[in-house]
Amino acid sequence: MKENTEMVRTDLALELREEVENGCALEGVRVFTKTGKNADVRETRIEVLNEAGEKNLGKPIGTYITLESEALRQNDEGIHEPFTEALFQCLCRMIGDKRRILVVGLGNRAVTPDALGPYVVDNLYITRHLINEGIYDSALEISALCPGVMAQTGIETLDILKAVVEEIKPDIVIAVDALAAKNANRLNSTIQIADTGISPGSGVGNNRKALTEKELGCKVVAIGVPTVISVPAIVNDSMDIMLSALGRTEARKVVEEFTDEERYQLASEMVEPYLASMFVTPKNIDEAVKRVSYTISEAINRLLDVY
Amino acid sequence: MKENTEMVRTDLALELREEVENGCALEGVRVFTKTGKNADVRETRIEVLNEAGEKNLGKPIGTYITLESEALRQNDEGIHEPFTEALFQCLCRMIGDKRRILVVGLGNRAVTPDALGPYVVDNLYITRHLINEGIYDSALEISALCPGVMAQTGIETLDILKAVVEEIKPDIVIAVDALAAKNANRLNSTIQIADTGISPGSGVGNNRKALTEKELGCKVVAIGVPTVISVPAIVNDSMDIMLSALGRTEARKVVEEFTDEERYQLASEMVEPYLASMFVTPKNIDEAVKRVSYTISEAINRLLDVY
Amino acid sequence: MKENTEMVRTDLALELREEVENGCALEGVRVFTKTGKNADVRETRIEVLNEAGEKNLGKPIGTYITLESEALRQNDEGIHEPFTEALFQCLCRMIGDKRRILVVGLGNRAVTPDALGPYVVDNLYITRHLINEGIYDSALEISALCPGVMAQTGIETLDILKAVVEEIKPDIVIAVDALAAKNANRLNSTIQIADTGISPGSGVGNNRKALTEKELGCKVVAIGVPTVISVPAIVNDSMDIMLSALGRTEARKVVEEFTDEERYQLASEMVEPYLASMFVTPKNIDEAVKRVSYTISEAINRLLDVY
Amino acid sequence: MKENTEMVRTDLALELREEVENGCALEGVRVFTKTGKNADVRETRIEVLNEAGEKNLGKPIGTYITLESEALRQNDEGIHEPFTEALFQCLCRMIGDKRRILVVGLGNRAVTPDALGPYVVDNLYITRHLINEGIYDSALEISALCPGVMAQTGIETLDILKAVVEEIKPDIVIAVDALAAKNANRLNSTIQIADTGISPGSGVGNNRKALTEKELGCKVVAIGVPTVISVPAIVNDSMDIMLSALGRTEARKVVEEFTDEERYQLASEMVEPYLASMFVTPKNIDEAVKRVSYTISEAINRLLDVY
Repeated sequence: MKENTEMVRTDLALELREEVENGCALEGVRVFTKTGKNADVRETRIEVLNEAGEKNLGKPIGTYITLESEALRQNDEGIHEPFTEALFQCLCRMIGDKRRILVVGLGNRAVTPDALGPYVVDNLYITRHLINEGIYDSALEISALCPGVMAQTGIETLDILKAVVEEIKPDIVIAVDALAAKNANRLNSTIQIADTGISPGSGVGNNRKALTEKELGCKVVAIGVPTVISVPAIVNDSMDIMLSALGRTEARKVVEEFTDEERYQLASEMVEPYLASMFVTPKNIDEAVKRVSYTISEAINRLLDVY
Repeated sequence: MKENTEMVRTDLALELREEVENGCALEGVRVFTKTGKNADVRETRIEVLNEAGEKNLGKPIGTYITLESEALRQNDEGIHEPFTEALFQCLCRMIGDKRRILVVGLGNRAVTPDALGPYVVDNLYITRHLINEGIYDSALEISALCPGVMAQTGIETLDILKAVVEEIKPDIVIAVDALAAKNANRLNSTIQIADTGISPGSGVGNNRKALTEKELGCKVVAIGVPTVISVPAIVNDSMDIMLSALGRTEARKVVEEFTDEERYQLASEMVEPYLASMFVTPKNIDEAVKRVSYTISEAINRLLDVY
Repeated sequence: MKENTEMVRTDLALELREEVENGCALEGVRVFTKTGKNADVRETRIEVLNEAGEKNLGKPIGTYITLESEALRQNDEGIHEPFTEALFQCLCRMIGDKRRILVVGLGNRAVTPDALGPYVVDNLYITRHLINEGIYDSALEISALCPGVMAQTGIETLDILKAVVEEIKPDIVIAVDALAAKNANRLNSTIQIADTGISPGSGVGNNRKALTEKELGCKVVAIGVPTVISVPAIVNDSMDIMLSALGRTEARKVVEEFTDEERYQLASEMVEPYLASMFVTPKNIDEAVKRVSYTISEAINRLLDVY
Repeated sequence: MKENTEMVRTDLALELREEVENGCALEGVRVFTKTGKNADVRETRIEVLNEAGEKNLGKPIGTYITLESEALRQNDEGIHEPFTEALFQCLCRMIGDKRRILVVGLGNRAVTPDALGPYVVDNLYITRHLINEGIYDSALEISALCPGVMAQTGIETLDILKAVVEEIKPDIVIAVDALAAKNANRLNSTIQIADTGISPGSGVGNNRKALTEKELGCKVVAIGVPTVISVPAIVNDSMDIMLSALGRTEARKVVEEFTDEERYQLASEMVEPYLASMFVTPKNIDEAVKRVSYTISEAINRLLDVY
């Protein structure tokens, strides 16, 4: 989760895409929707093809896959297996022939909605040391690290990872992090997998350094789950309803002429500065984050069965 | 913290009082402000004297003392001792000559902002069994219970407490619980002590049974700390700013004619139903709740020194 | 887990039985061994028939069923389902036609090896309040309580439970608690189900009041899992090896003439008093207790599917 | 705490020193005892001067300071301040004119007695990023890292630290870790500060790579607190009592002729292999580790006041 106080509107490419009026085509962006064997897991694939796409969507060039399931949020145990399998299939494609994987659990373990990354690492089956010691024989080498957040370490997360990656030279980094969403229905029920690395603050002035292939020197796959909504996003969402409630065409017209950016800007100004470091989160957040973290751990652990 | 999904505007008598326009006098309600030896701790005493007061303030007859300190929220260690002492003094007056105290830690330990009550109980010095076994000699008998919330037990909290109170017959119950506030600045920096028991949902249709002297058969002192803001309260707060931003006198006028109740009702309608079970909380909530819980535990433990 | 400092040799009827030389028949005690459909779960049923049996085994009259599986301890995921099913079958027989169940999670949540009971309650599906509110329709009413330990509450656990049982009048209490064992191999891999209630300190001077049908007024089924070994049990176990190592027939003879009681007494005297409040526990205790607690929660939740 | 299964007899230089019969002088080892202003904190300074000292004590050349206080173990709040001050004074001397400090919290957060290092880091005041961003002005730069243990990461702790140290180039590393002791009275009441780095398994075949100045390229100060006793140490301790109990001069004579090494070897053989991964720990371990971790955090934070 972003460490600075400026909250993003959303980290989900899917929600950025939805903002485009009428779902009309965006130059440089392609969208595929897939209904798999299991109809309960919706898979959307968004490809940002070029600079025009970057500009239009506000996300770097690359592929963003979203797996969604209402059932995951509702603690329906039946969804665990198909969701795990869908994520596992996704990871297989992204990882390709890479064999030496470093999983990075980003975020702050002490702040529940930000603890997703560390929770995932807690349940991984780590093999690197066992292979090195000759105890375990596998083609797949899994190592892991929870670097903490800058407020805890005083060190840029990127700097810690660059140093460790240079030392142990993995083929690929899988970075797991909590995200922000706009839509409360997506909290803890949506997983975004991206091959672009993690550059959380790209559009919003965040100065945490991005974890990208360019910086780390190896491919970076990011797995993210929205666990919070920003306060401005909540206020922004409630605007239309408020204006209808006021029933004043004039005022409504003003707002309708706003761009999305302008609306969000207005919403941000409507909340007091001290709210910037607050987040909106469901009451069962601890349980919800643990549940989705198990799904991610298990999808990664399943890689060991096939290689 | 309330167990149902309908969020209260505020549990603080102080914030209800502030809503009254121009701070003008309310029939049946008296307010005293005290600046103690330590100017950093503000003490406000609100007395609801009669039915008129109940109706005007929306709180049952009784005394509500609020201790506030910006320093408590800001992790200023210097405030711990004066705040503990102020709370201790307050408790002494409310407890009077009662000697057998049952402290009840209300709330759900697994939901951080609702864990205040259990955290306080964790750090109490319990003497009842030591006195009964003749190991410890004190005039003050402290016992404690964390009954859990109804979603965890399936049992009304009041029913558990009534049964236990009848069994061990304390002179007084001190019930500790997390509250909701309107103002983010009050989160984790304000303690409300009331001699009315805890009836969280009185004004908002909550059907959890209240813990009162009438029900339990012994005096009930409630200690509460606001740890969350409801989503409608956030939206409500942002309304004025939104309307100024719109710059339309007409629309603003409509809203200005609303009563507080009407405004809050509008704000509630502006948030989607699924947001009802969400809360707004600061990022450092775990640390903040622990810190204020230590203050409360210590103020209660200090009672042992004087009796 | 017992709250006093005098540690038991073992809480498992099975281990007491094993101590009897050559496994010869004990008057008043019957033993059945069952290999179920799933050979991985060993089931032993010990029946204490009468006073002679009580005296010979050191356990009250009743039935003690032990489910064992090496795989459970070794984090073999394949064992979770057959073990859950075996425990579920066991519970069905013990519960019979009772429909209103109160599950009691005994022990101290803050001491990992003693947190089994609270962990089990954390994962139960509670229905009592949903049935009472007409939200959920089931013949089986589940409620739950974690009363804490006397050091935390100052109140005898039995007194809390008696009061609550009288208030909500369940047909049966299922009490879940952590136990002590002699054999490290049994830690976190053995579940004992007894219909005698929980009377942990019966043979060793523990003065915590027992939770029995006689006291509570309804049937009590106890589910226990050994999570610790007492320090004297460790020392006791090492005696034979020590004596062989010494290679002195004379000294060995002295010890061999000791009864089990005498040996354990000697071992107890060999450890310093300050060790009495210590326990021996595996390094992965947190993970191990959580795993076995899921199995128990799930077996209890499964009752909802059949009634 | 050591990650392999072979438990050390003790990590405390002080306990190794005590083993030497009659406290007679050891070649190459000097011992100073200091009674400070506060008589409650005993300070012992052991200097290993040369190779002869290394061989005689079984610890690398360097200085080992032990701070002890019975009161710390007994939760006597009055000891917190003098103990913090004593540790702070000790650190000042060891740190000298170094200004860029990296604090490393060794150990496994999920295993309570091994969580000391991570707990200490949780409560540090981190300044490195604040200084770099120009928000905070101080001559003392504090950063921190919790690298996890090899079972969690698959990476040698030394390799992670070497990489990070090379990246951020601190002047000094303060490594905090849980230790093993022989004497239960020392658990959670003794702090050892050494300027030799951490080489936990030096005498017992541990193959975890040591964190030393030679390896890391900067000075390493180790702060350790014993939180567990090994099972063989417990058995070893109980031998004399057992032999007296047996009352056989002959057998006792055999044992008395053993060297300390031989006795410990015997004790190790007396415990079953599966006990090797177990530890002996007090029931209140979570609370005890948290308490001593606060003392250490505060002593380190106090450095910010003087530089």
